[in-house]
Amino acid sequence: MSRQLWTHARLATLAPGAAAPYGLVDDGALAVEDGTIAWVGPRAELPPAWRRGVDEHDAGGALVTPGLVDCHTHLVWAGDRAREFELRLQGASYEAIAQAGGGIVSTVRATRAASEAELLAQSRRRLRALLAEGATTVEIKSGYGLSEAAEAKCLRVARRLGAEERVTVRTTFLGAHALPPEFAGRPDAYIDEVVRMLPLLHAQGLVDAVDAFCERIGFSLAQTQRVFEAARALRLPVKLHAEQLSDSAGTQLAAGFGALSCDHLEWLGEDGVRAMARAGTVAVLLPGAYYFLRDTRVPPVDLLRRHGVPMAVSTDCNPGTSPCTSLLLMLNMACTLFRLTPEEALAGATRHAARALGLADRGVLAAGRRADFVLWDVAEPAQLAYAFGANPCRTTIVEGTIR
Amino acid sequence: MSRQLWTHARLATLAPGAAAPYGLVDDGALAVEDGTIAWVGPRAELPPAWRRGVDEHDAGGALVTPGLVDCHTHLVWAGDRAREFELRLQGASYEAIAQAGGGIVSTVRATRAASEAELLAQSRRRLRALLAEGATTVEIKSGYGLSEAAEAKCLRVARRLGAEERVTVRTTFLGAHALPPEFAGRPDAYIDEVVRMLPLLHAQGLVDAVDAFCERIGFSLAQTQRVFEAARALRLPVKLHAEQLSDSAGTQLAAGFGALSCDHLEWLGEDGVRAMARAGTVAVLLPGAYYFLRDTRVPPVDLLRRHGVPMAVSTDCNPGTSPCTSLLLMLNMACTLFRLTPEEALAGATRHAARALGLADRGVLAAGRRADFVLWDVAEPAQLAYAFGANPCRTTIVEGTIR
Ligand SMILES: [Zn+2]
Ligand SMILES: [Zn+2]
Repeated sequence: MSRQLWTHARLATLAPGAAAPYGLVDDGALAVEDGTIAWVGPRAELPPAWRRGVDEHDAGGALVTPGLVDCHTHLVWAGDRAREFELRLQGASYEAIAQAGGGIVSTVRATRAASEAELLAQSRRRLRALLAEGATTVEIKSGYGLSEAAEAKCLRVARRLGAEERVTVRTTFLGAHALPPEFAGRPDAYIDEVVRMLPLLHAQGLVDAVDAFCERIGFSLAQTQRVFEAARALRLPVKLHAEQLSDSAGTQLAAGFGALSCDHLEWLGEDGVRAMARAGTVAVLLPGAYYFLRDTRVPPVDLLRRHGVPMAVSTDCNPGTSPCTSLLLMLNMACTLFRLTPEEALAGATRHAARALGLADRGVLAAGRRADFVLWDVAEPAQLAYAFGANPCRTTIVEGTIR
Repeated sequence: MSRQLWTHARLATLAPGAAAPYGLVDDGALAVEDGTIAWVGPRAELPPAWRRGVDEHDAGGALVTPGLVDCHTHLVWAGDRAREFELRLQGASYEAIAQAGGGIVSTVRATRAASEAELLAQSRRRLRALLAEGATTVEIKSGYGLSEAAEAKCLRVARRLGAEERVTVRTTFLGAHALPPEFAGRPDAYIDEVVRMLPLLHAQGLVDAVDAFCERIGFSLAQTQRVFEAARALRLPVKLHAEQLSDSAGTQLAAGFGALSCDHLEWLGEDGVRAMARAGTVAVLLPGAYYFLRDTRVPPVDLLRRHGVPMAVSTDCNPGTSPCTSLLLMLNMACTLFRLTPEEALAGATRHAARALGLADRGVLAAGRRADFVLWDVAEPAQLAYAFGANPCRTTIVEGTIR
């Protein structure tokens, strides 16, 4: 049996309902047994059983938080869209960029063409950037393959990343991300294909959840519903890219399926917020995409607060609208752009992000949870959201051992 | 005599007037002699003298750019303002924050109280974050001391950072940053003090340039002029925090003194742009402060382009309005928020930033310049501005040797 004790730590437990902001415990102790947190609290109250015969670590006065959870990424892709970014800033028209091979289709083409090894290498670099900032759980969506073989390849890469790096990877099948060129003008036929693929991919153990892009430029409510029904038939949880560019009531549909999360939500109205509150659906806020797209409409944060909808914060790491690999920067953007408090932002990248993935075993420092936590070179948790472009991550612990 | 050759490199020389964008040279070679670039060009054209008897390095296909230059920082300060950031997001009023000890005065108090060793330690962490992204030259302003002793302390810390880390530090005396509490209501008396301090600090070798904050909430044109006259008497170059919150014509004043740069410039009008063009003054754009303050008025980038005013890009690293230590993020923000092209942004953090510091010996890869350069894990220079929250810096070379 492995028993570790971490002392000389300031603990931001993020425990819900704690009296102190952030669930702060000064001069705290954190006891770990076999990869699970066994006890958390003020060092003075440490039970006698933990006072000897343990492997003791001095946290050196560090602030300790739960491991960060990035609950919405598309980080498996090939190629890049820097040229498109540059062309747009040089004043090229949308048409000129499409002719130069830009847009999501270019990422689909490159991702389909890439070998699995190449896709793994490109994606690993992005994942490692997230890990360097203390991420211990990362969701990865497919959606740049858009064929059975290419979606399977992307999901296998996600699984391999989870096996090769010391991080939990949760996979989400996002076949209904965009219409592949070979289905142009035939979205319903492509949804047939998505519904056909899903059980095959699931049978290979590649799918933890199912997502769709419900939007004027994505898929309709009826098409989204078909995808969700296919997920329900397999007892897979669903999530939705909803109300990013318009209010199409995807949120209400998703809530009806008990969705884990609805994501983006810039155009979300109060009906959608109520539906999320009733269903216990998490609102995943993606300030990186808002920033990169120069959006001006922020998600209805006050409404979400008023209805008690938990808010998560994530990178949305993707080549087209958020080529971002810093969850800490997203904390700052969630505060600066969306006016979350630093405590809301940090809970959004730990406790609520875990919930957005259906993971009840992590996201807070509490007995019985996975011993995933981070030691930070800061005095106050607000500093994690206040500074931007810095990485004060000192040490990351995954299932009780240093990564 | 030390002779190094770097090959297998893609060179973004940033040389002015080059035919290729970014001054790109594929399969380039870069020859260094005693810390200075001796030859740059296509490997196939390398002069015979460089084909033997040199210490050869394989850049592994990396993109190579000039070392980054951060030409506007306030990175020597003590304390932090995370609590103030948090209070504001919790809805506290300006008065409540001032009562809780917020604002620039709190930084002045903490900086005055800090020991030189403590100030050095806090500032070094911020500097090292910049260095980790390939900065080889960093400007540091005083301005949180606001007394002769405390300003001297801050400038000594800046000098020590330059001596202890492998980076060129240029110091700027910004005594006219804010009115210290003991001079409340007596700004002219404080300017007397600034003018008295300057030659004393300069005599100690602490001052490379002189700056002021010319603004309704800062110092008037007449007060700024007195500071500039004191600088001129010492033959010190000047720069100015100008037109950030209003158009107060500080730019024209600064141009009249042949200012190296005018910085911020959100409210700059065409008269000011013309004055800068005539004087050869660089426009230093600070998108981090624009972002953090949720400003909505962008600097007149098109006017600056039309009049041929060089644009630099910098972090403005400071605790109140840009607690930012990533110059790469500033490249992205300069493009995303101010609509610079990636090439303009990169030139802004190399060639034009060097000029904003009066340094003619760096900022481009060309024979005769200092051998400060960076190897990046990217294929195209546009990727440095396109991705955000990543750090693809592989190796930094300072005066010819790896840092
Ligand atoms: Zn997404
Ligand atoms: Zn400044």
